[in-house]
Parts: sequence; structure tokens; C-alpha cells
Amino acid sequence: MKNTFGNTLTVTLFGESHGSCIGAVLDGVSPGVDVDETYIMHELDRRRAKGETSTARHESDTPKIVSGVYGGKTTGTPITVIIENADTHSGDYESTRFLARPSHADYTAHVKYGGFEDYRGGGHFSARLTAAFVAAAGIVKCALEKKGITVVTHAARCAGVSDRSFENLQSDAYYLRTIPTDRFPVLDENAAERMRSKIIEAKENLDSVGGILETAILGVGAGLGEPWFDSVESELSHILFSIPAVKGVEFGLGFGFADKCASEANDPFYSDGNGGIFTRTNNNGGINGGITNGMPILFRTAVKPTPSIAKEQDTVNIETGENAKLSIHGRHDPCVVMRAAPVVDAAAALVIADFLLMREGEKALRVD
Amino acid sequence: MKNTFGNTLTVTLFGESHGSCIGAVLDGVSPGVDVDETYIMHELDRRRAKGETSTARHESDTPKIVSGVYGGKTTGTPITVIIENADTHSGDYESTRFLARPSHADYTAHVKYGGFEDYRGGGHFSARLTAAFVAAAGIVKCALEKKGITVVTHAARCAGVSDRSFENLQSDAYYLRTIPTDRFPVLDENAAERMRSKIIEAKENLDSVGGILETAILGVGAGLGEPWFDSVESELSHILFSIPAVKGVEFGLGFGFADKCASEANDPFYSDGNGGIFTRTNNNGGINGGITNGMPILFRTAVKPTPSIAKEQDTVNIETGENAKLSIHGRHDPCVVMRAAPVVDAAAALVIADFLLMREGEKALRVD
Amino acid sequence: MKNTFGNTLTVTLFGESHGSCIGAVLDGVSPGVDVDETYIMHELDRRRAKGETSTARHESDTPKIVSGVYGGKTTGTPITVIIENADTHSGDYESTRFLARPSHADYTAHVKYGGFEDYRGGGHFSARLTAAFVAAAGIVKCALEKKGITVVTHAARCAGVSDRSFENLQSDAYYLRTIPTDRFPVLDENAAERMRSKIIEAKENLDSVGGILETAILGVGAGLGEPWFDSVESELSHILFSIPAVKGVEFGLGFGFADKCASEANDPFYSDGNGGIFTRTNNNGGINGGITNGMPILFRTAVKPTPSIAKEQDTVNIETGENAKLSIHGRHDPCVVMRAAPVVDAAAALVIADFLLMREGEKALRVD
Amino acid sequence: MKNTFGNTLTVTLFGESHGSCIGAVLDGVSPGVDVDETYIMHELDRRRAKGETSTARHESDTPKIVSGVYGGKTTGTPITVIIENADTHSGDYESTRFLARPSHADYTAHVKYGGFEDYRGGGHFSARLTAAFVAAAGIVKCALEKKGITVVTHAARCAGVSDRSFENLQSDAYYLRTIPTDRFPVLDENAAERMRSKIIEAKENLDSVGGILETAILGVGAGLGEPWFDSVESELSHILFSIPAVKGVEFGLGFGFADKCASEANDPFYSDGNGGIFTRTNNNGGINGGITNGMPILFRTAVKPTPSIAKEQDTVNIETGENAKLSIHGRHDPCVVMRAAPVVDAAAALVIADFLLMREGEKALRVD
Repeated sequence: MKNTFGNTLTVTLFGESHGSCIGAVLDGVSPGVDVDETYIMHELDRRRAKGETSTARHESDTPKIVSGVYGGKTTGTPITVIIENADTHSGDYESTRFLARPSHADYTAHVKYGGFEDYRGGGHFSARLTAAFVAAAGIVKCALEKKGITVVTHAARCAGVSDRSFENLQSDAYYLRTIPTDRFPVLDENAAERMRSKIIEAKENLDSVGGILETAILGVGAGLGEPWFDSVESELSHILFSIPAVKGVEFGLGFGFADKCASEANDPFYSDGNGGIFTRTNNNGGINGGITNGMPILFRTAVKPTPSIAKEQDTVNIETGENAKLSIHGRHDPCVVMRAAPVVDAAAALVIADFLLMREGEKALRVD
Repeated sequence: MKNTFGNTLTVTLFGESHGSCIGAVLDGVSPGVDVDETYIMHELDRRRAKGETSTARHESDTPKIVSGVYGGKTTGTPITVIIENADTHSGDYESTRFLARPSHADYTAHVKYGGFEDYRGGGHFSARLTAAFVAAAGIVKCALEKKGITVVTHAARCAGVSDRSFENLQSDAYYLRTIPTDRFPVLDENAAERMRSKIIEAKENLDSVGGILETAILGVGAGLGEPWFDSVESELSHILFSIPAVKGVEFGLGFGFADKCASEANDPFYSDGNGGIFTRTNNNGGINGGITNGMPILFRTAVKPTPSIAKEQDTVNIETGENAKLSIHGRHDPCVVMRAAPVVDAAAALVIADFLLMREGEKALRVD
Repeated sequence: MKNTFGNTLTVTLFGESHGSCIGAVLDGVSPGVDVDETYIMHELDRRRAKGETSTARHESDTPKIVSGVYGGKTTGTPITVIIENADTHSGDYESTRFLARPSHADYTAHVKYGGFEDYRGGGHFSARLTAAFVAAAGIVKCALEKKGITVVTHAARCAGVSDRSFENLQSDAYYLRTIPTDRFPVLDENAAERMRSKIIEAKENLDSVGGILETAILGVGAGLGEPWFDSVESELSHILFSIPAVKGVEFGLGFGFADKCASEANDPFYSDGNGGIFTRTNNNGGINGGITNGMPILFRTAVKPTPSIAKEQDTVNIETGENAKLSIHGRHDPCVVMRAAPVVDAAAALVIADFLLMREGEKALRVD
Repeated sequence: MKNTFGNTLTVTLFGESHGSCIGAVLDGVSPGVDVDETYIMHELDRRRAKGETSTARHESDTPKIVSGVYGGKTTGTPITVIIENADTHSGDYESTRFLARPSHADYTAHVKYGGFEDYRGGGHFSARLTAAFVAAAGIVKCALEKKGITVVTHAARCAGVSDRSFENLQSDAYYLRTIPTDRFPVLDENAAERMRSKIIEAKENLDSVGGILETAILGVGAGLGEPWFDSVESELSHILFSIPAVKGVEFGLGFGFADKCASEANDPFYSDGNGGIFTRTNNNGGINGGITNGMPILFRTAVKPTPSIAKEQDTVNIETGENAKLSIHGRHDPCVVMRAAPVVDAAAALVIADFLLMREGEKALRVD
């Protein structure tokens, strides 16, 4: 479905980086869900550029909800969020229009769309569209929290520096949910500081860095998901890989399973004697056979270094077909790992809500 | 869509491990495509149990194509492949029916389906269903080969032993396509031998091992895929994560991007002077912005150790809720990594064909 | 989705008239639903050829449920129903293979599939596939009845003879549900007798006749359906028009609205004083704004005369492109109106169940 | 998919009658298609209120295309059309907020959305949303015309007055395409005049009238469509029944088939001797077995009288549950038949384009 994702709950993304606006249509949210604009702005603030470690492009990014909400609550019909594009410097792109930025979508879009694509600032491929995505998903994420389902993400690794792993998930989740939005979503403050230094160093080198995000979804009971093609892993990875710069997704031990025996890697069940069934370890990241087992859902997302860098690169002029040199002088992020955290959270919230709506029906997101 | 996957080309999986049969319906294949039963049997042979490193369950696995093929060619209407279940030992499961196998779908299916699931041999969650999947996809994979598109997979790592990486993709692909089906899909024969030893060792320890598959798709031109939610990565990961035991997927450098700078990780474009545009490196695994760039598509899939092991494990009796011990004495694989290779190939072939059909229309798979 | 229909509950049809079997995969049925084979056979009996007013082709049409049912109850995973093709006379078709039967799919399938279609007996386009459809939907229709939702259809008109309209829906529904399966689904026995005479007369004239089916769905509460593209009318008409020979669908007054004023045609609401809201008339057939209003859902389906007749017709040889004459000597129905009634019921049951599952969640079809 | 329709080409509708705007997202249009704003405005003008036979609500209805178009051509990514709501008189609705308008969606929406729906002016159910639909589809309809595919609709019957039938489809189509937009889409000017009188008479009676639209799609070759669930009839009826006030759809003879024998109703094929195959009659409306046969596609759509009338009606107060009287004093149409014609055209254009894109691939709508 190209720019629409979901089964019962769908999101449709539209817009271009340098067009008049970007937006998202969210269809299938239960009626009567509170729309907390402060919550949405907080999610957008988390995604916003973070001082010197981010792009110099600053947009107010105030989302307008133009449909589907009445009297502060969802109506049950499509919710449309629009964010105007204000601070566009399209001129930045004219001189280099035909110089395909390495590892960016310029060349592939040019081939696919035959030269008709809006090339300015990455057009429809711009990570800017994730602002509309985060705003729309914010309604859902907030509704999930009222049902006791929390999604949190930290930068497990960035610029060669590792954060500590999740330890106490409840307190780590609380920390990540309450950390100021201009800070990095990192559990270990020392690690955050070292990441910051490394990012600034990369920026000074006209370069950029990548990292790994680690996400926990708490409060999802057992039995959510579908066999085979709508496994929780399938749906989550589908939407995660649509986030720009994401190149890897793993659940629980993920690639670490390769070097394990089942006797080490299996998660033994135990009963708490009160009807509760749990696993002693959580190497499977809360998912068995594609379906949640009631343990926290855990996954990691690899984020590549922002491909747009000022350092000179080899490329091709896609109009003339000649080899060329390119130094990108627009406003770009030396690191998008931190800014991608709320986007990953938004993606996860949409998938979990979609499964809940399938399981429990169209009123599943409402709390009375 | 639960048990159906795809956009223009869809596959629907049905059946249970110990039911009367398993099957797959493939809808959207171009009319007039040759159906080469030898090719299909070869793919099934690749998936078949491999002597002492695999399960003792042996099925003839002869697929019957009961619709959609006439006169040896596809008709354009749904193709249904059915494989009878012959060698079922359901009795193996009765005594341990309520003892949820750790890291398997027993418990989660029980919660989701409320005890109505067919529990015998994993029921609908059994990896046995991938036989029908491989058979159906074999028609598509064969058609792609006639169009110059090849999918090959090797075990990059298994039981702690690494295969060499892809070097010359053309000759490595030729090697993998022509290797006897009772051999491991491994490029380095010494590595294969060491893997075999390690797997047998695990089996003797009543244990099992995991690994990593690495896949290359050759011959796909630039411009295939969609932005955002139908990115090539999204679609591939969606179907890959529906394969039992898959817990991680990464494209190109994948998680390796975390420690790279863009100046190292970006793939510079160059022109061959004849209209051809290529990248010097292929860290992005042939995909930029979710769309193919004409370079080989490269991805890696993490496969966890088979959860069913004979070694005693802690678990819970899901009927009584009491803690229990479980030693699994059915016929199980000490390693499914090798057998998963043709399943991954099948998944990849379906995704690429689906994209081709969307781009080029309903006759895209036919070669005259 | 070509041969798959539905949102949360999907049905996929496969097979050809003269292939080895036909079948249907039903995905999304709640787990724990009783599978009553007697009920399913009864629905198939209703669809079966009815003596001299029907085709001479007789098949045992015993459906085999090969997946998704265990211990007499649905498991929650895909249910596959297969019906073997036994009584095929493919030879009937060889001599006229290239003579496109007027108003049949021969020519259009030939163009679409480029000559690769299975032409024998209409191939995949044969109304025979509705046997698998009726069998699969029978599980759902039976489950709806246990929830108090009944679907009944009568032949409101056939061969120029009108049945009486629905009067007391409860007793008419009871009559239609309990009428022997070798009888016509007609409320007025005299009308039934006259229809029978007219059909036999048409048969003797080497001709066939059409008619109109009228359907009532009782027991669906208010609030089912979706705005715009998933209106109850949209979904019902979608599946109804996929039944062979259906060329018109209308809800409530339907085309009769054209000559009405709103003051006559509107359905005024009234309260029963106990919280019940009803309409005095039901011109809208129980649907307002695409959503059920709690009144019986009423619709009518136009069924064209079976296009396959023995009378000589003009046609074209699609291989040579030359004009030709055709007399069809296979076994065909002089009237399919009666046999289409259970197919329409099956279609309606699937749509209502799909909406229920979306509204109430994955367990909606189960009654404890 | 609730508010999204289509396979390869999708349209998503959002907005409410009295919200800030309405809009549509169109995804899947080929890149490089000319966007002719004059053409779009012409389609909107056709839909606009027509003097005294229509509502007094007048909106400029100037669509803003906020994404997916660059340099006057489609880019290939989602096209979003937004129309601001300016002339809203929400106060009209406050006093009658809980008085469910008979035959309107007020009551059903109230049940479905639990009172959270935006009730003002019909909210999301308002026919006003068809303005965005017509604007978006206008891009597609214009592209089809450049490929030689024309969709035209006339009011075959309105307020008890019949227009003449289609005679020469080419000249009738030309007439309908060039008729001024403030005129009725009626072939016989005398009939148009009589319809006008009857509509005004109904208006003076505080009432409204219904009618039947007849549509022809010219220039579609043979072989378009899918078997079973994606038959051309299925897809067309699906979207047609989502248009407010539509209660019946028939193809070709439609309900007229009921009284025909096959020997009268079948469409005999003939060859023109030059490779062209045609039918002598077109009772099937250009569709056999769900697939186009190359003859004009013909269908008729029943439009009920606008339910909102000034005449006093019985109803229920849905808040108190008490019986009540209602006279609707907002601005409403005494007849929407004429204004529905371009909406039906828009729906038909989208379906045909979707099928073309599936058959011919993603560039199918572009003409170079």
C-alpha cells in the first residue's frame, strides 16, 4: 500500500520536505480517545533538532489536527495532522540538483519516478515527514499509556559509545519518559556526554555518525499478534524499516542467537503460583511464534550515519551521466540516532494499537 | 492479513503439522509462466532434512499443484500447492500436550486461541508449513531466474563457525545454485565441515544451535520498491520475520553501520561512461531510500537455535498452571539454519516478484 | 486482492471447474466456533442441482476441511475446504474450445490471460467454485445464527413470475430456513410452481431464464459498518457482484427511490419507550450512511439467465477470428436463480461476520 | 480499509462538513501526469450547487494540492487535495443536535461512535466530502482522457421524468463533456426542463426527489479486471455505494435481466474481419465474467431523494430517547441527482485507472 500502513488502524503519509506541508492521516482510532496536544508536542519536541548535534533547520512544527477530533476527543473517523513547511531553503538544492547524494534516495527516486520527483530536500523521502508521523502516532501512544502500555527507546549505542543496557525496566522507562526533550534518550549520563562529544567531533570533520536504538514495550499482555505474515516481528519490522536510515532490526537476542545453544537461549517458563506465567530470561524479546508472551517486547534498530555530509564525496550527475564531486552544504544532522527515538516509539505504538484493535474491537483504545 | 502476504502477488498459507495436509495459494502470477516441477522439487530438496544434522521426520513432501496450472504453464488464476502430511507421530505430543515448550509458540497460541489451537507438533505454527511456501514460491523463483534475477543464500555463520563472505557474487551464486542439495549452503567447505561437527556435537548434548544466513539478490535493476511503508527493506523484513526462528534482519552493513561515519559508510556513485551508474561500495545492500539502486541486494537473517531440544527444561503446565520439567522427545532438528536457506530465498523471490508486477504490470513474470 | 475478499475475515477462492479440485481458505474465524458438518452439507444441498430445472452434472460435493478445525471446532487459524472434481466431462469442451460462449467469460479470460487460461468448463470462472465458497461460509453463517443473526433469501422473481414480498420476516425466515433443499426458496408455493413450469419451458426451448433474489439479514444491531468505502452496502455489493451472473444489487427501495419524494421514502424514527429506537418503514433496507440502523438489512440481487444455452448462437472463433455458430451441448442450468440463493446467503454472512470481528474483536463469532 | 479504497491506486478521504477542511490523498498515480487545474475546477463546477434546484450553501471549493505535484506534473508520490470549509453555519445544527434526521447517518453514527462523532452538518458523513473526492479523481479522469478513455454520466431519470437513453455514445459523450456546468447532465433538453420544474415543485413542497444516473465508460479495451472478488462490477459497485444517497447499482440490463431469456439477453460476438471482436448487443454492459470485453461499460446508479427536508418528520431525540418532531432548516438540496453525476464519474475513473495500473504497471497513466 505504498504510503499507507496498517490493518485495522492505518496511517497514510504525504508531503514533501520543501512543499507546502507534510501530513498524516490516521484511520481507525477508537472514538472518545482524549487528544492531548501537550503530549503530542512533547513527542515532537523529542524529535526536534537538539542544538549543535543536529541540523540548523528549525521549524516550529506545530501540528494542526484538521479532521477526526471534536471537543478534544477522537470522533472515530480519520484524523488528519498537517504541519506547514516554513523554514525551507530550496535554493540550497538547486545547484546540486542532479548530483545524486550517495546513500540517499536521489538516484533511486530519479530512476523510479523518471525525473518527475520533487527533488528539493529529498522531497517525499525526507525524514521531515516523520514529524507528521510522530504527531499522528502521538494520539495513539498517549491512549496506550492510559491502558498501561508504555513504549520507551534509548540509544544503546551511538558514535561508537555504548549506553548501559536496560536494567530495571520500570525505572528505566520512567527515566526515559521524563527526561527533558533537549537531552539525549540515554540511560547513562556519562555515555550521553561521550556520545555528544563524538557527534560534535564528527560534525567538525564534516561527517556524521550512526547508532543503535533499543526499545522496550511494557504492559502488553500475552496473546497479541498473528501467526505467519502478521507476526508481531513482521509488523514491527515493516514499519521500522520504513523509517529513513534504519538498516537493521532484531528482537531479543537477535543476531546474538547465532552463537547460542537452545539450552542457553530458550526462555524457560515459570508460574508465580497465582495464575501468572512468565519466562526467567527474555531472550526472545517477549515474542514466541510471532505472538506476545506477556514479557516486555524488546527490539533493537540500527540507524546508519546521516548520508548527507559536507565532506566531499564522489558521485554522478544523473542528468549528464558524468562523474562528479559533491559537498553538501544544506543544513543536516551529524547524527539522527537521538531524533529517531520518538519515531521508533511512534512506529511501535501504531503496531501495538493495530493488534489491540484487531483483538479487542474498535473501541479497544478507549479508556472510560 | 494474518496468513496472506503481498500486494499484487499474494501468498496464503494454511495447514497444520499433524493435520491432513499443508498448503499455499499463490495469486497474481503472470499467465504463461513455465512450471518446472524439477525446479520445485530441487527447492524442496534443499529444505529437506539433511541426515544426522536434521530431524528424523521424513516426508516425501511431494507437492501437488491442484489449481492455476494447465498444460505445464500458469493460467494467471490462483495456484494452489498441497503437500500431504504422511509421517506424523501425533502420539509424541499427547503426553506433553500441556507442557509449553520454551521459546516455542505453544503458550502464546494457547493464550491467543483460548485452548482451541491444534497443539500437535506446533500445529499451524510448525516450520513444516514452509515446505508449501517453498514449493509455491519455487514457481516464482524459477520465473525470476529466466528474467536474470537470482536469489542465493549461504550460512554466513552457524554454531559459532563463520563461512567466508561473498566475494565474487557471480561465481558464488553459481556455486550455491549448483551445490548438491544434501550439502550445506556454505561457500567454504572447511567451514561447512566444522559447522557439521558442531551441530552433531550439539545434538549429542541434546541441544541445538543457531546461525546467520546471508542472501544476495542479483539482477534486479534500479528503481524497484516504494517510499515509506513499502520500502524493499520493509517488505523483505516483513516476510522474513514470518519465517519461524528468524529474530533479526539487516541490510548491507546493518548493525555494522552503528560504528561507522558516513564518509566510510556511504556508497559513492560512479559512472561507467556508458550510461551505467554504480556504487563503489555496497554498504547499503543495494537499497537507497527503500528503493533498489541496481547493486546486488544484500541482507542477513538471524536464525535462533531450534527451541525444541531433548535436554530437560523448566516450563509450566498451561492447564494446571503448575511448574514442570520438560524433555522433548519428538523428532527435531539440532540446527535449522541450513534448511531455512531455501525458505529465505523463497521469501525474497516473492517480494521481488511482487514489486516487479506492481512496476511492470500483470505480465511481468513471463518471458516469451 | 483478486481472489481474496475481506478485511479481518478473509476468504480466498481457488480451483477450476475441470481441475482436480476447487477450494476456499477462510482466515480470521474466531477460535472455538463449532463446525457443524450437517449444517454445511445442508447449505451445499441448497446449492445443488434441483432435478429437471438444473444441470445434469452431479457431483457428490463432499467438502473436506483440511485445516483450521480440530476436535470439531475452529482453531483460529486458516480453515481450508476442498471439494474434489469428480464428474467432469472435459471432452464436452474440446470441440468448441475456441468458440467463445456469448455473455460468458471465455473471450475476456482469453484476452486477459493470453490463451493460457484453463478453458475447460469455464475454468476458474465456473460457478462451480461457489460450492467451495458456500461450504466455507457455512461455518460462519452457522456461527452467526448462534448469535441470533439470520440470513435468508427467496426468489422474488424468476422467469417472469413474482413471489410474494417478505411480510412477517420472522415467520418468512423460519419458512425459508426449514424448507426442504430440493424445493425452490420461494414464499408462495403457487409462484414456485409457475416458476418451475416456466423454467422447464425455457429448457425445452433450449434457453434459460433469470430472476431476482431478495435477502433479509435479521438480528444485526445498529452501528455495524464503516463510513465511505467500507459502507455495508459497499462491502455487500462487492462480494455479491463477484457471484457469477449477478448484474444488479439494490438496498431497500433501491431503484424504486428514483420515483419517490423524501417525505415518502425517508424512514421516520420512533422510540418504543424502552430505549429501543426503530424506523416505521424500512425503505433504506436497514442501512443509513453505510451503517446498520438495527432494522432488518434488505437487498435484492439481479441474476441474469445462464448464458450457456443449447440454442444456436452467433459467436467468433477466438483462435481464427472468424465468425461462427455455437450450440452448447454440455450440461447446463436453464435457471441458476434458485441455486444462487445460498451463495448470496454465504456472501452476506461473510460480510456481516467481517464487520462484527472488526467491531468486537477476534472472538466475536464465538458463543460460549 | 474504512476510508481508503483501491489496490494499486488508492484514495483516502478525510474531513468533516463543519471542520476546518476536507481532503483526499491519492496514492499510486503514475509520475509525469499533467495536472490540469482547469479540468479539476470544471469537475468541481459540475458538482457545485445549481441555482434554485440546489442548496443555498455556497463554497468557493478551491482545492489546494499540497503534495505530490511539482512543476505541474504528478511526482509519483501521494497527491493530497485540501478544500477549506468556509461557509459553515454550524449554528443551524445546534438546536436539532440530538434529533436524528430520518434516513441520514445521525443515528447510526451516534451508535457506532458512541456520541463522540462530529454531528455538525453530517460531520464525516456529509456529501461535502465528495468535493475533495472529485478534485482528486479529476487528475486521474483527465489522464484517462488522454489515453482515450472517457467517462460520462447523465440523469436517466429524475423526479419521475426520464431522459432519453444513450443512442450514439460518441456524440452523447461529446455532448455531456461539453455541456455548461450550470446545466443538468441530461441528453434531452425538454426532459431537463421538466426535471427542473419537478425539482422546484418538490422544493416548494419542502421535499426532495431522487433519480437514476446512467454512466458509460468508453475506450477501455478488453481484458481489464479480475475474476471473482475484483471483478469490474465488484470494484465499481464498492466505490459507487460509498457515495451518499446511492442505493442501487446495475450493469447493462441489470434488473432487466430478470425477465429475459438468455437467447434475448446474451450478447453474440462478431468479428469485423480485421481482428476486432465485438458484441452485437451490449446487455452485459461491457463486462463478462467480471472482465471487460471491449464494449462500452454501462451501469446505472440509483440515487435516493436527499433525506434532509424542511417538511416536518417524526424522529427520536437520541439523547433522551423520546419521540420528537423535526423540520430541517439548514441549507439542503431538493435534488442531488445532478450533483452526483461528477462524483459517479470520479468513482468510475478511479476504478478503471486502478485496473490499468495493475495490468500495465506503475507508468500506465502517463502519456508521453
